[in-house]
Amino acid sequence: DSKLKIFTCNSNPKLASQIADYIGIPMGESHTTSFSDGEIQVKLSESVRGCHVYIVQSTCGPVNDNLMELLVMVDALKRASAKSINVVIPYYGYARQDRKARSRDPITAKLVANLIEKAGAHRVITMDLHAMQIQGFFDIPVDHLLGVPILAQYFRSKQIQNPVVVSPDHGGVVRARKLADFLNAPLAIIDKRRPEPNVSEVMNIIGNIEGKTAILIDDIIDTAGTIVLGANALMEGGVKEVYACCTHPVLSGPAHERLENSPIKEIIVTDTIPIRSSNPTSKLKVLSVAPLMGEAIIRVHEELSISKLFEIE
Amino acid sequence: DSKLKIFTCNSNPKLASQIADYIGIPMGESHTTSFSDGEIQVKLSESVRGCHVYIVQSTCGPVNDNLMELLVMVDALKRASAKSINVVIPYYGYARQDRKARSRDPITAKLVANLIEKAGAHRVITMDLHAMQIQGFFDIPVDHLLGVPILAQYFRSKQIQNPVVVSPDHGGVVRARKLADFLNAPLAIIDKRRPEPNVSEVMNIIGNIEGKTAILIDDIIDTAGTIVLGANALMEGGVKEVYACCTHPVLSGPAHERLENSPIKEIIVTDTIPIRSSNPTSKLKVLSVAPLMGEAIIRVHEELSISKLFEIE
Ligand SMILES: Nc1ncnc2c1ncn2[C@@H]1O[C@H](COP(=O)(O)O)[C@@H](O)[C@H]1O
Ligand SMILES: Nc1ncnc2c1ncn2[C@@H]1O[C@H](COP(=O)(O)O)[C@@H](O)[C@H]1O
Repeated sequence: DSKLKIFTCNSNPKLASQIADYIGIPMGESHTTSFSDGEIQVKLSESVRGCHVYIVQSTCGPVNDNLMELLVMVDALKRASAKSINVVIPYYGYARQDRKARSRDPITAKLVANLIEKAGAHRVITMDLHAMQIQGFFDIPVDHLLGVPILAQYFRSKQIQNPVVVSPDHGGVVRARKLADFLNAPLAIIDKRRPEPNVSEVMNIIGNIEGKTAILIDDIIDTAGTIVLGANALMEGGVKEVYACCTHPVLSGPAHERLENSPIKEIIVTDTIPIRSSNPTSKLKVLSVAPLMGEAIIRVHEELSISKLFEIE
Repeated sequence: DSKLKIFTCNSNPKLASQIADYIGIPMGESHTTSFSDGEIQVKLSESVRGCHVYIVQSTCGPVNDNLMELLVMVDALKRASAKSINVVIPYYGYARQDRKARSRDPITAKLVANLIEKAGAHRVITMDLHAMQIQGFFDIPVDHLLGVPILAQYFRSKQIQNPVVVSPDHGGVVRARKLADFLNAPLAIIDKRRPEPNVSEVMNIIGNIEGKTAILIDDIIDTAGTIVLGANALMEGGVKEVYACCTHPVLSGPAHERLENSPIKEIIVTDTIPIRSSNPTSKLKVLSVAPLMGEAIIRVHEELSISKLFEIE
């Protein structure tokens, strides 16, 4: 019966310590800093010999620094004789480079999986991978958690009347379907079509939305272009109001400004990625994944199934 | 008889194109940029199918970005069916983390070697590794080039009278010995000693330096602390003047200011790392490694020995 320890790198120290609190253990003592030239220096301040170690680190921006921190940490734990090294990656970056969309594209999501394994990780716990196929990029176990129940719980507690869950594109229908099930709500889909080459896209809405409260859901909101166009189309289509939600608030470039100026009433996200903008939109509501992650770690450590975490009550 | 192609990432585009010029071929067309969220995007604009490809990329600062660019580039070339992928790393970053200096240290130089191999590289061409042992971190061929002949040539052309080559510490004596041989000069060593714990170091100089022109040589000048302390000790020891030289001008933190305010007359470096300071010291003289790298690539491609590049004439 080996000891469970939790360490963090620099992407999400707050989430990591909330996870440790949930589990009821102190954070493992380590310091990830930089030398004068920018090279990462990892210092483990306590023994991990024979321990089952969980490292919390999202590969959000600065993505290459965060990824390398994780890899160096895994290397240090491996050489310090940890019994198992479990990497907890709430947000898995580079997930959108998951296939050769054009010829000669790299498949960086697979490269990253290879790097994490090569460094010495034994297991990955992650959440809402942009493509489920990324699980297959690993040859080690991947526990895949879902954000939908957390988002659903929030909307339930709001007691929204006459809701319709909307997928902003065809790629997100399965996720939207799940939220709709949780909320006992109907589903609609925004169907983008380019009628002719070089003619701008037409937003066609499949499903009945008039007079309803729309809940747009996506896995990632990055520059917020898609979600804001979707919200505009929904308003034109006659919805009463629009909420938007996602698991991973990447929110790069013009995202905050776009969201602030959009008809979206509230944007519900999770803390898989910390909000780093100096001028964030006032519409953000951040829900914590710490209880879910904590529960998953406990169950993994005790070798229990984690699938029951996602059943619909 | 397959085609040789040269590509670059973003650390050293100028050096890469000088290497291509030396070899007499155009640069391969590729673009390494970032998405809005900072994730690296590599675009190969020409076919590499069946080609022997050489990628020029130093893992200098920003080290994690430069390393990841290299890895993504290797991944793209691999999936685009390059016949061989040869990574030309003029400066190999993380080389000082080459052993467990303290317990629970990572060995990041080995991690980086593993990552480069796992990405799909078939060969490494590099220069003045901080520790020669790093060659053994790879299971693929490593061609190791030396900067000393380039530095020696410069000092010869200056026709320095009465020179003495000085190693700033015991770790650098082999390198200093080589420069001394090239210049037919005597050797001296700065011998740092801490007489008692918590008493500051004493700089003791082994060898005859009085009235001579000292040439301090190191592989890396990073914050310039060591080299400037050495120069001060040499001046106090009665040298006429001090030159300093190194292969890799990391020059981080206070380096430029320290060098500017030091008694060092001139600092001779190479272009394995581009000088990025907004306020560089006026004492820098940069020599190009492009002819050496170009010659090494030609010889590797033609399967000729590269050791004759480093013989003393
Ligand atoms: N970090 C990124 N930011 C924006 N687009 C990306 C990023 N990574 C990959 N892509 C592109 O997004 C597309 C994949 O997204 P998707 O179709 O939603 O899976 C591909 O065409 C990629 O080139
Ligand atoms: N990027 C870096 N900057 C400064 N010191 C470093 C760096 N990487 C490693 N070190 C330290 O430098 C020492 C190795 O240097 P050396 O003894 O010259 O091989 C080790 O104690 C390392 O912890």
